[in-house]
Amino acid sequence: MTAKELFNQIKRKQSFLCVGLDTELTKIPEHLLTREDPMFEFNKKIIEATNDLAIAYKFNLAFYEVHGAAGWNSLVKTIKYLKAHHPEIFIIADAKRGDIASTARMYAKTYFHSLGCDAVTVSPYLGQDSIAPYLQYEDKWTILLAITSNESFKDFQLIENKQTGNRLFEDVVLQSMHWGSDANMMYVVGATHPEYFAAVRRHAPHHFLLVPGVGEQGGSLQKVAEHGLNDRCGLIVNSSRGIIYADITGNFAVEARKRAQKLQQEMKALLTAKGLI
Amino acid sequence: MTAKELFNQIKRKQSFLCVGLDTELTKIPEHLLTREDPMFEFNKKIIEATNDLAIAYKFNLAFYEVHGAAGWNSLVKTIKYLKAHHPEIFIIADAKRGDIASTARMYAKTYFHSLGCDAVTVSPYLGQDSIAPYLQYEDKWTILLAITSNESFKDFQLIENKQTGNRLFEDVVLQSMHWGSDANMMYVVGATHPEYFAAVRRHAPHHFLLVPGVGEQGGSLQKVAEHGLNDRCGLIVNSSRGIIYADITGNFAVEARKRAQKLQQEMKALLTAKGLI
Repeated sequence: MTAKELFNQIKRKQSFLCVGLDTELTKIPEHLLTREDPMFEFNKKIIEATNDLAIAYKFNLAFYEVHGAAGWNSLVKTIKYLKAHHPEIFIIADAKRGDIASTARMYAKTYFHSLGCDAVTVSPYLGQDSIAPYLQYEDKWTILLAITSNESFKDFQLIENKQTGNRLFEDVVLQSMHWGSDANMMYVVGATHPEYFAAVRRHAPHHFLLVPGVGEQGGSLQKVAEHGLNDRCGLIVNSSRGIIYADITGNFAVEARKRAQKLQQEMKALLTAKGLI
Repeated sequence: MTAKELFNQIKRKQSFLCVGLDTELTKIPEHLLTREDPMFEFNKKIIEATNDLAIAYKFNLAFYEVHGAAGWNSLVKTIKYLKAHHPEIFIIADAKRGDIASTARMYAKTYFHSLGCDAVTVSPYLGQDSIAPYLQYEDKWTILLAITSNESFKDFQLIENKQTGNRLFEDVVLQSMHWGSDANMMYVVGATHPEYFAAVRRHAPHHFLLVPGVGEQGGSLQKVAEHGLNDRCGLIVNSSRGIIYADITGNFAVEARKRAQKLQQEMKALLTAKGLI
């Protein structure tokens, strides 16, 4: 998917919401557990309840891998379903992989070719040659971790570089910008640390940013938008648990929709205020 | 597995060799491709040819994930086979994962509990709370990336910290040492950059180091040993392609054994010179 197509979807849906399908068998409504593939059934219901409000779905692979081959099959089925019924949706494999080039080629093939995702999240620790294989795929996106949403992000991401004076996450953004472009790279910037948004946006004014941490993790959408919105929106804001586990009864999809709608309405107001819709 | 059990195995086998089962269908002998599970058949043959020379096997998950559920099943079967027939072997999931705590808990469950691996490789970019969930498992090991074996390792790993004067990989080692201990943490230090071995060993004199990059990637075992050996060996040196793809005919297992044996003999000499056996 191109940036233009993504922005068109954002304008049409008046939303930059990504729903994170971090599906856990211990958290989904009990009545689904008797189905042949409970994870897929749950995902399908969430997708049907939210696809007009969300522009993207994000799959954190850990939640599927934990069930081995069965989990992998649930993931494949969900992605196939999404592509068949809602081909406009931007699909993110939240893998946070990071490995040497020969291995990265395998991961890229898995997420882009086999699974057909539009984007994959990647960790920067190994540097350029570990990212390059992902950038070979046309109209696919590599989403590099810059500022993560967890508490311990500061252990290493804020280290100041003696030579450049930049903090590590800034060096990650500034160096990697030249590996790809704003047409095939995005950055992860956690909503829980809005004070770093301005720095990332200054270094990368035109890139899309994937923003986890709104909702359960406590990040503020207003602050994210204040620092992060650019002239083609430039934000994909994810909520996982806050939406998909809004309710655990037979009513879960309706409640998930309400939460998604609340975020979408806030996003609509922010996009309007910015003059983007 | 405890460090003591690992060292006992090293002394018994006179080896600190890890064989990397980065199995690719395009590289294994053609006659195996007609089998029901070619990857498992290949792995089994390599294991049978090398298990008296190797103390560990390492599975880079990318090579299995690329085949989806089928690849995952080949991985599970191989690990089950290893545990049933060679229970002394140290099993490493080379996953290089790194995610927030709630996700890390899922990954830890997958590798330690479901797959039954002894160790998992993890990326340090997210800091302490992303590592803590792995350290909850008794007698299991978290292997943190310090210096990776690729060319671009220098992009970020060598950045000098303005406050501490340390390079990033040193801060990773120095900080993370206090998260766990030398009884549940190891570090990855690529054989291709022996000049950094001394620094890691100085900071972490008692930890085991997992060393990729010997063989196809060009690292020298002599230099690794010179800087890395400690009084309980403290090294697990991996070779993947250099061993498993030594030959692609019906003779592949014999040739793989020869390569493994050559490394084991060198290791025996190094262990002897150091007075460890």
